[in-house]
Amino acid sequence: MRFTVTYRIFAATLAEARARAEGIALEQTVEVPADVVPQGFVADEIVGQIVEIGAEAEGIYRARISFSPESAGAELTQLFNVIFGNSSIQKGLRCLAIDPGDTIAQRFPGPRFGIAGLRELCGRAKGGLIAPVIKPQGLSCDALAQIAYLCARAGADIIKDDHGLADQAISPFRERVTKIQAAVARANAETGGTAQYFPNIGGQTEDIGANLRFAKDAGVGGILVMPGLLGFGLIHRIARDATLNLPVMSHPSFLGPYVLSADTGFSHGMMFGTLQRLAGVDISVFPNVGGRFGFSAAECAEIADACRTPAGPGKPIFPSPGGGMSADRAAEMQAMYGDDVIYLLGGSLLRHADRIGEAISAMRRVLDAGGRLP
Amino acid sequence: MRFTVTYRIFAATLAEARARAEGIALEQTVEVPADVVPQGFVADEIVGQIVEIGAEAEGIYRARISFSPESAGAELTQLFNVIFGNSSIQKGLRCLAIDPGDTIAQRFPGPRFGIAGLRELCGRAKGGLIAPVIKPQGLSCDALAQIAYLCARAGADIIKDDHGLADQAISPFRERVTKIQAAVARANAETGGTAQYFPNIGGQTEDIGANLRFAKDAGVGGILVMPGLLGFGLIHRIARDATLNLPVMSHPSFLGPYVLSADTGFSHGMMFGTLQRLAGVDISVFPNVGGRFGFSAAECAEIADACRTPAGPGKPIFPSPGGGMSADRAAEMQAMYGDDVIYLLGGSLLRHADRIGEAISAMRRVLDAGGRLP
Repeated sequence: MRFTVTYRIFAATLAEARARAEGIALEQTVEVPADVVPQGFVADEIVGQIVEIGAEAEGIYRARISFSPESAGAELTQLFNVIFGNSSIQKGLRCLAIDPGDTIAQRFPGPRFGIAGLRELCGRAKGGLIAPVIKPQGLSCDALAQIAYLCARAGADIIKDDHGLADQAISPFRERVTKIQAAVARANAETGGTAQYFPNIGGQTEDIGANLRFAKDAGVGGILVMPGLLGFGLIHRIARDATLNLPVMSHPSFLGPYVLSADTGFSHGMMFGTLQRLAGVDISVFPNVGGRFGFSAAECAEIADACRTPAGPGKPIFPSPGGGMSADRAAEMQAMYGDDVIYLLGGSLLRHADRIGEAISAMRRVLDAGGRLP
Repeated sequence: MRFTVTYRIFAATLAEARARAEGIALEQTVEVPADVVPQGFVADEIVGQIVEIGAEAEGIYRARISFSPESAGAELTQLFNVIFGNSSIQKGLRCLAIDPGDTIAQRFPGPRFGIAGLRELCGRAKGGLIAPVIKPQGLSCDALAQIAYLCARAGADIIKDDHGLADQAISPFRERVTKIQAAVARANAETGGTAQYFPNIGGQTEDIGANLRFAKDAGVGGILVMPGLLGFGLIHRIARDATLNLPVMSHPSFLGPYVLSADTGFSHGMMFGTLQRLAGVDISVFPNVGGRFGFSAAECAEIADACRTPAGPGKPIFPSPGGGMSADRAAEMQAMYGDDVIYLLGGSLLRHADRIGEAISAMRRVLDAGGRLP
């Protein structure tokens, strides 16, 4: 069964839009002019096929183009290459959605955990989850572990490394994982809680496999990855690894240009929802409206919808808005995102110093009170 | 020694631009508000420092910000994370250049081969190199190998897989590498030539190490990688591997949104030149002016300059324009790019069917005649 990708095409006329759609159908597959496409299987199956094309608005068209699963094979990176590889370099073209169809859905089943699996892992059956970010870069592993301890004590669900903590000499990956995991385990033992530590994967590319195993053996609850820098293939590799069996949290670093311009890249929902689910991500971090990034409320809602729609691909996953989050905004955020959401609490937490736990407790109280300041 | 990154900032006033630059200095390092930055090492060394800021034009400013090598550590992905990770999600911000400084230059020495090393490998001491692309996707390995054979016979310097050939069932990676490499070796034996085969790396992420070794053992001349999909970390891993010791060719698939909008992403030279050199790329493929992509002559010249400037980082590398290239355009292209360039010959080659070699020979004659049609 073929899979279908929806593109927005900026063109003066329907005829021009159709010509561009025909260009995409070739560009994303055979990448040769139409007159030299080999007849038979290549022409009949491999070349993309325009399923539907029509106008969205003046100068804006929408085309659905279907592709053969044989173009994608079993590699996620090649699937993405067919979806929007070379065509990403064309101006006036934006990729909006994918309907994977049965074959691709079977080859790329998506997240191992999803919302339900993570709720079980974190012992939080309902309500939003709270995920403080451990930082800043430049602190020792001991200092970072102490912040993690205070956060876990206060009832954080997920303790997440800052995405800027890699394998620097100041706080090497393995020492950091060992010390923060021990601090979180100590807090859990004291409170009976189930806070889960998600380290940011660090190390040279050739060492990442061993570092993932090290983190698993240390007892971490999941892994943070930046697909913009490490590649979507690495996320997919972690998510598929049954012996690792760890949830994956994805960070948007380096991905901004894919969504910032309306006439290129991906829709917000596709980049931070659909593609993440195809890759096996369980939690998709994105910049929240009203923070220091410029995402609108509508764009954030589109991301949350794409993460959670039961239509797939794969299990629904947690949207995780970050940036400028605090107890003061919790009620507003709960009204916007509902219950199935993970709130990142970032740098402003540090303002509370040793009383950092109080900020987390305050956030928890608002969420548990159904979004009303109690 | 600190490294320095140059950003273009879209702002109404110098004061606003300075505030944004101060934001970048925090965002790319500690990612906490200024008032909670720990004093001492973190405040003094880790936080970015504005070196210079000034107006470029009305509403456009340029800032140079320096960072500590300790923020980047030894991982290329973390270096890129510091250069433009979260700030890539800010609107009205474009990353233009990096001055690595001695420390980063030592940690990231760049390409293993560069222009000089590749000329030696290919036995082409001067003049442009010719690199036909083996395609289309959907053909069997035998059919692809036959095309490669004809190209190698005709004097191609580099035989490059199409970037859409991964590890699909139609032409599995290992079978393809074995058959195309054998075909190229046979042609070389017949002509005394030294055509080099660069397969596109395929396979699941966890199998890529073994597949690279397989390709090396098969005798390939280099490796093609797509950093937009597989991550810059993988390029860096291949380039650094002394036992592999293979040149790396980089393909721009999925990278379009980084350069297409003037007020976000990277300058063309930085994305397709500087960042590639830092990652260890020896040949940077990009869409040529006048083809089916919209890059301007100035943008292509900027890429070629960034690839070849002796100022670094690392050794000068080959720019490799592709798209709409043929003998008819060779003279024009030679006038534009000079000698140190690798011309991709793509899908239109197939129009010549069994006489594909004649198109390559024709291109060679024009280049050898100094750009004059002989």
